[in-house]
Amino acid sequence: MATEAAPDDGSDAPDAYDALLERAKRWNAVGSAAGVLGWDQQVMMPEGGTPARSKQLSALSSVRHDMLTDDETADLLAELSDADLTDEESAVVREIRRDHERADAVPGELVERISEASSEALAAWEEARAEDDFEAFAPHLERQVELKREYADHVAPDRDPYEVLFEEYEPCLSIERAEEILEELRETLVPVIDAIRESDRDLAVDTFEGTFPTDDQEALARDALETVGYDFDRGRLDVSSHPFTSGNQFDCRVTTRFDESDPLAAVGSTIHEFGHAQYNLGLPREHWGTPLGESRDLSVHESQSRLWENHVGRSRAFWELFLPAFKERFPDTADATVEDAYEAVNQVYEDNLVRVEADELTYHLHIVVRFEIERDLVRGDLAIEDVPEVWNDKYEEYLGIRPESDAEGCLQDIHWSHGNFGYFPTYSLGSVMAAQLYAAAESEIDDLEGSIADGDFDPLREWLGENVHRHGSRYETNELVRRATGEDFSADAFLAYVDEKYGELYDL
Amino acid sequence: MATEAAPDDGSDAPDAYDALLERAKRWNAVGSAAGVLGWDQQVMMPEGGTPARSKQLSALSSVRHDMLTDDETADLLAELSDADLTDEESAVVREIRRDHERADAVPGELVERISEASSEALAAWEEARAEDDFEAFAPHLERQVELKREYADHVAPDRDPYEVLFEEYEPCLSIERAEEILEELRETLVPVIDAIRESDRDLAVDTFEGTFPTDDQEALARDALETVGYDFDRGRLDVSSHPFTSGNQFDCRVTTRFDESDPLAAVGSTIHEFGHAQYNLGLPREHWGTPLGESRDLSVHESQSRLWENHVGRSRAFWELFLPAFKERFPDTADATVEDAYEAVNQVYEDNLVRVEADELTYHLHIVVRFEIERDLVRGDLAIEDVPEVWNDKYEEYLGIRPESDAEGCLQDIHWSHGNFGYFPTYSLGSVMAAQLYAAAESEIDDLEGSIADGDFDPLREWLGENVHRHGSRYETNELVRRATGEDFSADAFLAYVDEKYGELYDL
Repeated sequence: MATEAAPDDGSDAPDAYDALLERAKRWNAVGSAAGVLGWDQQVMMPEGGTPARSKQLSALSSVRHDMLTDDETADLLAELSDADLTDEESAVVREIRRDHERADAVPGELVERISEASSEALAAWEEARAEDDFEAFAPHLERQVELKREYADHVAPDRDPYEVLFEEYEPCLSIERAEEILEELRETLVPVIDAIRESDRDLAVDTFEGTFPTDDQEALARDALETVGYDFDRGRLDVSSHPFTSGNQFDCRVTTRFDESDPLAAVGSTIHEFGHAQYNLGLPREHWGTPLGESRDLSVHESQSRLWENHVGRSRAFWELFLPAFKERFPDTADATVEDAYEAVNQVYEDNLVRVEADELTYHLHIVVRFEIERDLVRGDLAIEDVPEVWNDKYEEYLGIRPESDAEGCLQDIHWSHGNFGYFPTYSLGSVMAAQLYAAAESEIDDLEGSIADGDFDPLREWLGENVHRHGSRYETNELVRRATGEDFSADAFLAYVDEKYGELYDL
Repeated sequence: MATEAAPDDGSDAPDAYDALLERAKRWNAVGSAAGVLGWDQQVMMPEGGTPARSKQLSALSSVRHDMLTDDETADLLAELSDADLTDEESAVVREIRRDHERADAVPGELVERISEASSEALAAWEEARAEDDFEAFAPHLERQVELKREYADHVAPDRDPYEVLFEEYEPCLSIERAEEILEELRETLVPVIDAIRESDRDLAVDTFEGTFPTDDQEALARDALETVGYDFDRGRLDVSSHPFTSGNQFDCRVTTRFDESDPLAAVGSTIHEFGHAQYNLGLPREHWGTPLGESRDLSVHESQSRLWENHVGRSRAFWELFLPAFKERFPDTADATVEDAYEAVNQVYEDNLVRVEADELTYHLHIVVRFEIERDLVRGDLAIEDVPEVWNDKYEEYLGIRPESDAEGCLQDIHWSHGNFGYFPTYSLGSVMAAQLYAAAESEIDDLEGSIADGDFDPLREWLGENVHRHGSRYETNELVRRATGEDFSADAFLAYVDEKYGELYDL
């Protein structure tokens, strides 16, 4: 196949580029088919279906891997390495090359060993958590650390293994930037949370106590999605034990879950997933199956969910709009005021040990604890057996509370049983990015708060579509943020937001 | 790869056999993943999802096709052509070879042209049916006939093209046998139906008239599935516009639909799909993904659905058992007797023109009309423009009624717009086979009718599992029937059943 020089207008790409794009569309179609099977598995599949589903998913995964790493893909990438490409084409080749190189570097048998070890570790973790028995889980955790170090060693033997693992989730955000931001969060938030604990302000946290039937909560979750503008012709709302979002620009579905005692949590979680879905639904349709039609990485995805969850769903403007719908579903709350709702969704918990139930502030300290521990584990600076004590010490130091059991402590999350080291930081990075993007949207949209209170979400949806969604993976993360906000990615906007919002809420 | 002779005990297959089996498992896993996507498309997918779904399905289909036809598969099959194989291994190789040869014979571009023409024909058919405008559909039908003749020509240029197309659905049942059976049905049933029309017996057809809310019908459909023993841990019941069954031995799901005026139809349709599901769920788990773990062809599959629908669901014994559940859902029918129900589900319609609403007897004449027309079209013995008149003439001759419009006539079914010539006969063949299998089960099971009336379906389920399901595709169709019943596949049992049942019902 000959390389043809293409003029820089993008209209005449080299043949190798077109061929690579066709191949990418095919392996991405296979990957997105696997996504449908994953959704089905969590939402619809009867329990007996597991053996067949595992085989189907593993066949699709190995088909996709084979296409991504085969000689033809390698040859096309080699041919394109000195081709004359437009900016857009270069971005596409950059993204495909990165995926190809990582997939190519790691032997299939190691991927399989990790997958098997994960299945065993998952079962061991479930039991260990139920029995509060860290020692039973310790050998599995150790094995996952070893395997993931081996993995990192294949990808880049001379680099910090934690950095290499972090890049699995954030391939184009530097670990240094991530570490700086997490450190800044810890340094700033620990004293803020201390001050909140010492504050005399009592928030109206008991206005929404009671029992709220899940059928009505489901109707309310639908109300919330209608309110923010979810396109039900391209999506669905279902229930699953862990809320998630799955799909693409044509069909992107959300799930939620219900706790009879906490309808506000379901609203928040549903709006969170809406933010993820809105990102996927806003990706350019004509580029589906190519990097230009795929979302950027985990932190950017989380920025979209957190923006809607925190900056919209936890705002006074939103509750001015939505409280009447809430009261219609739950007439017992007829006396609640907008201020009551605002305070209830923004309360900072004094004694919560559980990450997934954390408020907007303490959340980041839950993440920092995990980040510091997993980084030290992977770097070999922390022994497995010391994890529980280090975990508890850090909770005491950062959050002022000490877990009384490992079940409530270092055994609470599923991630490490999957060997997902480097994943936790993306949650905090996404929240921080959400604040930066929202501040930029606020400065560019005329009376954004007013339009939210009026139920007009078009300006915000359009701003996000224009500045984030439509770019797909064209820009790397910092470049995307810089183009959207005029600034490099930083925690400044988040910390200013915390200062203003919680200063007012708690009279700090 | 060297061929190793294997001893005949099946424990030591040649390497090429094991390699072929591994490959087949992979392409079948991909195929069954496509099945999940198909189910989702009809049951769950929001309408906006179509463009992505088409691409996902086409990618999976071409991945599967590539694996089935590539050099490695061809080489393994060549190597195994003179290998020493057990009976079981030979059956596996026979089935894979058949699939491989057909897939290999037909150029991918023709498959793509047929698929494109089908999409266009489907849209044209929907419009033509709505407008009662056969002429608008005629060019599309002509194109499908041409393309399918071209297809047949690739597979076997010297054979009858209709036979070749029939084998797409019935690869191991001869067209001669099929034609004989359909002719026998026509010759026997036309006079029986005439006699029924002349009978003075009025069946209790108006006992179940009224309006029956679909929510209650759905609950009743679940009751029916519970009654016959559907395993909800390996399945689901959902609603779709056309009822269907989808899945494998681990997870096999059924759908149904509801007509507010006809709750008996929903019960029958649900039990029909249960029969299909029960077959798949009864396939050997350890052979999933290989021919030994796959169902035989369409007629055998239809025999399982029809057996449950007609021989169980239309029996007095079943209504003795099920009528109380029916009355509980629909208390307005409290006065209905078992005999009322039996007559209502077995009435032979005098003026029904629609295949999918036909009773157990006239159904076959609907099929014979389609079979004769499509066979003549494919063989070049009938011109497209003559289809409506020939259709109407045949309805008049066989069923004593003449459609007043093509919408109610030759435009009523979707099949020809898909180019599915050769598919219709499998419906009748399956019903005939159902009667033969049921008669054998009756003769081997002690008081089968009594056990049904008692709600004990274990004996029947076990007999079918033992004699049909567990064999997968090990035996070709006639061999499977012969082993189960002791006789070659024939219409004898069906015609005896008709004679006895309808003779009594209508005093013939």
